[in-house]
Amino acid sequence: MDIDLNADLGEGFGPWRMGEDEALLDIVSSANVACGFHAGDPVIMDRTVRMARARGVDVGAHVGFPDLLGFGRRPMQIEPKELVAYVLYQLSALDGMARTAGHRMTHMSFHGALGNMAAADAALAEPLVRAVADFDPMLIVSSSASRAIEDAAARCGLRVRTTFLADRACDDDGLVVPRKLPGSVIHDQGAVLARVRQLLDEGTVTSFSGKKIPMRAHSILLHGDTPGAVDLARAVRGVVEQAGRVVPISKQSA
Amino acid sequence: MDIDLNADLGEGFGPWRMGEDEALLDIVSSANVACGFHAGDPVIMDRTVRMARARGVDVGAHVGFPDLLGFGRRPMQIEPKELVAYVLYQLSALDGMARTAGHRMTHMSFHGALGNMAAADAALAEPLVRAVADFDPMLIVSSSASRAIEDAAARCGLRVRTTFLADRACDDDGLVVPRKLPGSVIHDQGAVLARVRQLLDEGTVTSFSGKKIPMRAHSILLHGDTPGAVDLARAVRGVVEQAGRVVPISKQSA
Amino acid sequence: MDIDLNADLGEGFGPWRMGEDEALLDIVSSANVACGFHAGDPVIMDRTVRMARARGVDVGAHVGFPDLLGFGRRPMQIEPKELVAYVLYQLSALDGMARTAGHRMTHMSFHGALGNMAAADAALAEPLVRAVADFDPMLIVSSSASRAIEDAAARCGLRVRTTFLADRACDDDGLVVPRKLPGSVIHDQGAVLARVRQLLDEGTVTSFSGKKIPMRAHSILLHGDTPGAVDLARAVRGVVEQAGRVVPISKQSA
Amino acid sequence: MDIDLNADLGEGFGPWRMGEDEALLDIVSSANVACGFHAGDPVIMDRTVRMARARGVDVGAHVGFPDLLGFGRRPMQIEPKELVAYVLYQLSALDGMARTAGHRMTHMSFHGALGNMAAADAALAEPLVRAVADFDPMLIVSSSASRAIEDAAARCGLRVRTTFLADRACDDDGLVVPRKLPGSVIHDQGAVLARVRQLLDEGTVTSFSGKKIPMRAHSILLHGDTPGAVDLARAVRGVVEQAGRVVPISKQSA
Repeated sequence: MDIDLNADLGEGFGPWRMGEDEALLDIVSSANVACGFHAGDPVIMDRTVRMARARGVDVGAHVGFPDLLGFGRRPMQIEPKELVAYVLYQLSALDGMARTAGHRMTHMSFHGALGNMAAADAALAEPLVRAVADFDPMLIVSSSASRAIEDAAARCGLRVRTTFLADRACDDDGLVVPRKLPGSVIHDQGAVLARVRQLLDEGTVTSFSGKKIPMRAHSILLHGDTPGAVDLARAVRGVVEQAGRVVPISKQSA
Repeated sequence: MDIDLNADLGEGFGPWRMGEDEALLDIVSSANVACGFHAGDPVIMDRTVRMARARGVDVGAHVGFPDLLGFGRRPMQIEPKELVAYVLYQLSALDGMARTAGHRMTHMSFHGALGNMAAADAALAEPLVRAVADFDPMLIVSSSASRAIEDAAARCGLRVRTTFLADRACDDDGLVVPRKLPGSVIHDQGAVLARVRQLLDEGTVTSFSGKKIPMRAHSILLHGDTPGAVDLARAVRGVVEQAGRVVPISKQSA
Repeated sequence: MDIDLNADLGEGFGPWRMGEDEALLDIVSSANVACGFHAGDPVIMDRTVRMARARGVDVGAHVGFPDLLGFGRRPMQIEPKELVAYVLYQLSALDGMARTAGHRMTHMSFHGALGNMAAADAALAEPLVRAVADFDPMLIVSSSASRAIEDAAARCGLRVRTTFLADRACDDDGLVVPRKLPGSVIHDQGAVLARVRQLLDEGTVTSFSGKKIPMRAHSILLHGDTPGAVDLARAVRGVVEQAGRVVPISKQSA
Repeated sequence: MDIDLNADLGEGFGPWRMGEDEALLDIVSSANVACGFHAGDPVIMDRTVRMARARGVDVGAHVGFPDLLGFGRRPMQIEPKELVAYVLYQLSALDGMARTAGHRMTHMSFHGALGNMAAADAALAEPLVRAVADFDPMLIVSSSASRAIEDAAARCGLRVRTTFLADRACDDDGLVVPRKLPGSVIHDQGAVLARVRQLLDEGTVTSFSGKKIPMRAHSILLHGDTPGAVDLARAVRGVVEQAGRVVPISKQSA
């Protein structure tokens, strides 16, 4: 009956801030923390991990392309062997910083273009997910619905936590529609909340083409890029609690 | 009777190489591996750690300023609180990559200007060394002779491995003379070998000013920036073995 | 009777924004544009230059240390010869982008720690200012009051536009007090406006120690980091106009 | 009867060197200088431009993706509008540094993956080439054979200098075969020299598939990554001179 509320946090860089991290940390149960490749830096990572620990929020590494300028949202063709090293580096960085802060990394998530590419390409998902298992077989892979990621994780003995992107359209396979396509991002708050209710009530989502498809999500992704986003996040949490679902508290930060 | 032979490795970046890493790995017993701030990248770190493991060479994080352009050799005035986060990030990155490769990080070392500044300034050494202890109290701090580092480590319960920089002049306190001063780098190979013999025979070094001072080093730093440097490194190992001292093999890479 | 109103703009990076650039461009007569070293990137530079041109605002290169993480506010010890190349690179980048956008670079300014260091050290100011003159002898050096900068510019035949930092305390020589010292940044808006009035009426400023010293400023620096800062900038412009002083319009963007 | 000998130079970064720049500068008539995105930095750019000027070698901007880790060889999907800004920034940086050094930029070239993508995609070539024309309509675009580049340049009124990559296989359209495919890089020196002779004698090249196709090149690309490469470059120059073709001297560096 547990359902995780998840957010991407620590997405500033140096003097620049992004998102309402503190406000979101009071709403979510897990945070994906940027590790310095597409966003984030050691100071921000340390602060985010400590704030998460203080609020009983699980942390995971948000692993992205090495592209600060493009925020990791631009596809890059990188050899899987090199990408594996990039993944291990980012997992390591957050893991060590979390442990030093008295917290513990529970999961990981692929960010942006890397996430989209891995979700859609089994040949890429396989080595990346295997790298996660090589790093720590107890880590949970947090991912939007993706056969490629799920199959790779199954082969590696890793658990997957499927995340529902409430404000992003998906296709008939449940794959998130690329951000560039018109209608991909759902701005209407009522529509977003209705999608969450449908997920909780029926375990389905209505795809871009209008088809109702099954969606077995254990997590809902929330945003904090704007003040309005935080209000929506709170509203989503309200819908979840009304549905009698439990938002868990971290077992790592006792 | 053990004496460690130590080198700075993995100092390339992306397509660029620096130093004869493979040749040095056949000579040394421990390697300081750059972690992506002043040099190094995930691919190079992974390769270096695996090569070290295969040869029974201990690895440690070589922690530097975030300054690729200046190779971490330019003093930067950074708040200790921020530097602590930079140190933790770099320790974490190498630690996780070493573990994933079946190896284990045994030590750490401060690189370049960060190393010089910490060695000469107790107020800086204290928080940085404490960060190392917070990360892992079993890590050894590998450092050229420095009262500031040694005192901080003693307070934190960390072991220090004093490293003798055979080709660098030191002052009457045993502190390495900055690279920019004339005569700081000793180019004559005979002179370098003579300094190693004096260290092994007498436990002393002759300072920049001509004074003979005690030097209790447990490690000798070797270089591999040029083919000549590798020959010199081999010659130093020869001197060490002739003196009956043992160059240890890693216990982490069995 | 002209007095320039000046602001630091284009200080975002990639996906990150900083400051209310558009609001400030409606208030100021000249903008210092970050060039990618401490902030700014090509996309932001291009956008800023075009917005400035459309509003009749002069643009200049805001030249800083290569330190995005520290926003160029952390002192770095870099060889003057290398710094000269960094200065030329940044001047070139903005100059070319401005010309391509149909605008023209009129001035330059040293940012943050580089600015503070050059303002206080004649040995550093000399090669940096000479690099500006070598690049384009018609450029104006925009600087807070500094004997080092003024003397170097005089020797190189460059004009200096002294900028009054209305919200920053200065010492008895008129040098800006470092940001870290308590009281360095003046937050009270009434006090800031009073300082502007005193400058316009008497040509003086009251130093940190309470001494009234002459200040011959041709420009006043405004900020846009917060909405409140924009309001203050508008208020300063109001004070300037009430004093009968003219805020000029760019001759480059016709 | 002139034929240009061209090389990619200034491809180091910070402390790292790549290629035998000085040796090549005694052989070539034009140099493509990296501008800090895929390689190069202000210090290296300044040094390279001054060395080129002293030897009567023309310089041009070598414009690449913002990817030091991947040396600009990894395809990135970046919005053309953003790429245009990246191109302008790099052109500007080299142009200004060349002028300050008493030299003048004559041409530009797209590097690595950006070059391959633009050469094969008219929709990408168009805005990039137009940006070059907007920057300076007198610049020459130096490119391996590409219909997309040539057509875009014709529409913008830019001259193209077709460069023959003597050691790279091409397909039946004359497009360079991607570096990853086996046989793409021709290592046999005799084969490379024979290809140069065939180009000079017949104006043809034998494609990957064995077909003889016309190749109207005005320039031959030489490499200096290894000592052997420099010898080959000298041999190519010998072949060119034996064929009675003139290697021009820069008119910009008088």
